[in-house]
Amino acid sequence: MFGKCLENVRSSCPLVHNITNYVTVNDVANILLACGGSPIMSDEPDDVYDITSICGGLNINIGTLNKGSIEAMFIAGKRANELGHKVLLDPVGAGASKLRTDTAVKLMEDIRFTVIRGNISEIKTLALGSGTTKGVDADACDAVTEDTLDDAVKFAKSFAASTGSVVAITGAIDLVSDAEKCYVIRNGRPEMGKITGTGCQLSGMLTAFICANQGNVLEAAAAAVSAMGLAGEIGWSNMLKTDGNSTYRNRIIDAIFNMDAKTLDEGAKYEIR
Amino acid sequence: MFGKCLENVRSSCPLVHNITNYVTVNDVANILLACGGSPIMSDEPDDVYDITSICGGLNINIGTLNKGSIEAMFIAGKRANELGHKVLLDPVGAGASKLRTDTAVKLMEDIRFTVIRGNISEIKTLALGSGTTKGVDADACDAVTEDTLDDAVKFAKSFAASTGSVVAITGAIDLVSDAEKCYVIRNGRPEMGKITGTGCQLSGMLTAFICANQGNVLEAAAAAVSAMGLAGEIGWSNMLKTDGNSTYRNRIIDAIFNMDAKTLDEGAKYEIR
Amino acid sequence: MFGKCLENVRSSCPLVHNITNYVTVNDVANILLACGGSPIMSDEPDDVYDITSICGGLNINIGTLNKGSIEAMFIAGKRANELGHKVLLDPVGAGASKLRTDTAVKLMEDIRFTVIRGNISEIKTLALGSGTTKGVDADACDAVTEDTLDDAVKFAKSFAASTGSVVAITGAIDLVSDAEKCYVIRNGRPEMGKITGTGCQLSGMLTAFICANQGNVLEAAAAAVSAMGLAGEIGWSNMLKTDGNSTYRNRIIDAIFNMDAKTLDEGAKYEIR
Repeated sequence: MFGKCLENVRSSCPLVHNITNYVTVNDVANILLACGGSPIMSDEPDDVYDITSICGGLNINIGTLNKGSIEAMFIAGKRANELGHKVLLDPVGAGASKLRTDTAVKLMEDIRFTVIRGNISEIKTLALGSGTTKGVDADACDAVTEDTLDDAVKFAKSFAASTGSVVAITGAIDLVSDAEKCYVIRNGRPEMGKITGTGCQLSGMLTAFICANQGNVLEAAAAAVSAMGLAGEIGWSNMLKTDGNSTYRNRIIDAIFNMDAKTLDEGAKYEIR
Repeated sequence: MFGKCLENVRSSCPLVHNITNYVTVNDVANILLACGGSPIMSDEPDDVYDITSICGGLNINIGTLNKGSIEAMFIAGKRANELGHKVLLDPVGAGASKLRTDTAVKLMEDIRFTVIRGNISEIKTLALGSGTTKGVDADACDAVTEDTLDDAVKFAKSFAASTGSVVAITGAIDLVSDAEKCYVIRNGRPEMGKITGTGCQLSGMLTAFICANQGNVLEAAAAAVSAMGLAGEIGWSNMLKTDGNSTYRNRIIDAIFNMDAKTLDEGAKYEIR
Repeated sequence: MFGKCLENVRSSCPLVHNITNYVTVNDVANILLACGGSPIMSDEPDDVYDITSICGGLNINIGTLNKGSIEAMFIAGKRANELGHKVLLDPVGAGASKLRTDTAVKLMEDIRFTVIRGNISEIKTLALGSGTTKGVDADACDAVTEDTLDDAVKFAKSFAASTGSVVAITGAIDLVSDAEKCYVIRNGRPEMGKITGTGCQLSGMLTAFICANQGNVLEAAAAAVSAMGLAGEIGWSNMLKTDGNSTYRNRIIDAIFNMDAKTLDEGAKYEIR
């Protein structure tokens, strides 16, 4: 019933506060609008308490963190927790620098996250408290493949159990898991990796999905992950011969804009383990 | 004669200094180029005095304000006033947080704005000095409709009279007013609300229009507002079945790029009250 | 053999650290991915030492510099020098403000740049240590034309000799020079000037080219400049009647995404002086 989760976003239009990086922020805002949510961006410590208070959810992305935005993440995160808002962490580049790793770990200590979404290298870094991420992409040696799937599912469940968060580990195969149940999702296209910010976009959209499906976080998160992958497939099928990654970015957001419940339900490819 | 206002932008190529948010800044730069202006962005307090000095106009947008950029807004605004430059305020999210409301109010106290452009909720916040804006979009209960139009026109004229600025209140129906005369503009498409930053883009372009039409601010502002709405109509008419909000964004800027005086004069839909 | 330089980027996928402006950063990331590189953005002083250490090259662009990012430029630049990484300077707006000119000059004193890329006005500013740049575009009176080409080539060689860097001066005619040899490149379209950030994009891509062609910096830099111009030509040839500068931006990045060695070798238009 992923389609129903999408419909709930479109009917409730959740307002999502994003503290996110300046690389992909415009695409995050546009995909939030495309799925039926409403974005607001603010990362000034003196502004975020008020802003997050009027929103339904908070998306914290550490992609181009700085001293000011880090302070804002803690203020907003605590306030969102007080109000019972849904809160998502996207630990971009955790493992690539001490500051990113330490910030992500400290955020997890001080703030209860509804969902944590990252690539496998970032999530492994959070599980270990240290890491060796190569930039903002997952290490090839970490990749979730059919061969390593059993172990990866166990890891996802264990990480979800220890953190109390739903975890979304995205890559060629996506895993969305709580302590008990793991969605294994096979939507998407490898070419999505040639666009900057498909992960950031998903995190923004995912926050809208969990806001609009309060009692059903695990399925809503899986629905958002599947919708993103499906949009990648639909967008790719619309590509012309001269199109490349910049146009592909537009086509993916466009595909979310045009996606209805039926399309998502029929296009979703997943199993539950 | 909105078309003549556009032609004046293309022939004089005004350089516009933008202190704007990082969400929509790229689109602001591209629409400024599309209409015939030239953009420069700078928000560092130590940089803005020099930068604004070489420009013809200044566009202040508080969308992702921070302590540094707020300081820069005051420095640049005062310098632009000293030099007699055209200055525009876009109070994004005024009413949504105390910092945004206070910053916008203080800017209006210290700086003379040629034009103030916002949605109805933001402008009402400025008029009252406080507000209840829901995020960065106008509250439905504030919306300017055919039913509330008379009152809205009165409000626009009164706000313009009390501030000494031309005011542009944009929404389904756009109002561009000074104390005496109000343009009621009916260009545009509702789908423009599904793109992030059409308001920010308009503010950038509007600054170029008032720079290039120095003695004719009210009409130039109305011309820019009408051009933006018309670009929304033209862009929408070029949409293919699989296109969505991300491509629509491109098509709107493209429509400005391709717009000539005749197209604007023929497509503009307005009355004067 | 520009095509071979491009192939080397695609096969080695260099990780490039970008300290760049928030106006064009998304396009810089996407063109880096399009050419086969991998981008990471970070401008927090406490983050950049670690980030640049795991990269192959560093792209410093002063487009929307602030106190924090300036500090980060020096930290990252010195670390990149220690590690023998390729480092590029893009002095956006040097000459337009004292802060920009002083920062660029100080960066050149403290850091060894492999390549310096700018428009003619910016490079003249760096040569003189002061300047009169009009915004972020080159002054018309500085433009490199067929008439001024001999002098411009001499200037480029002399600047390269005095700095020890390869210099790339881009405009209607592009010059890429070391102290001995100057590539005069005639790819490109005038309409590229109506898009924000084609220069920033080139700087990002150029950094990937010099990372992937370590022993061959001059030719790699010329290859990147030629590829960007050729992408402008290919992108323009794909334009539809209703397309404008926003779509043109996508088409140029798309053209890089689809460019192969043969296309570049056949499309490159240059002579060596």
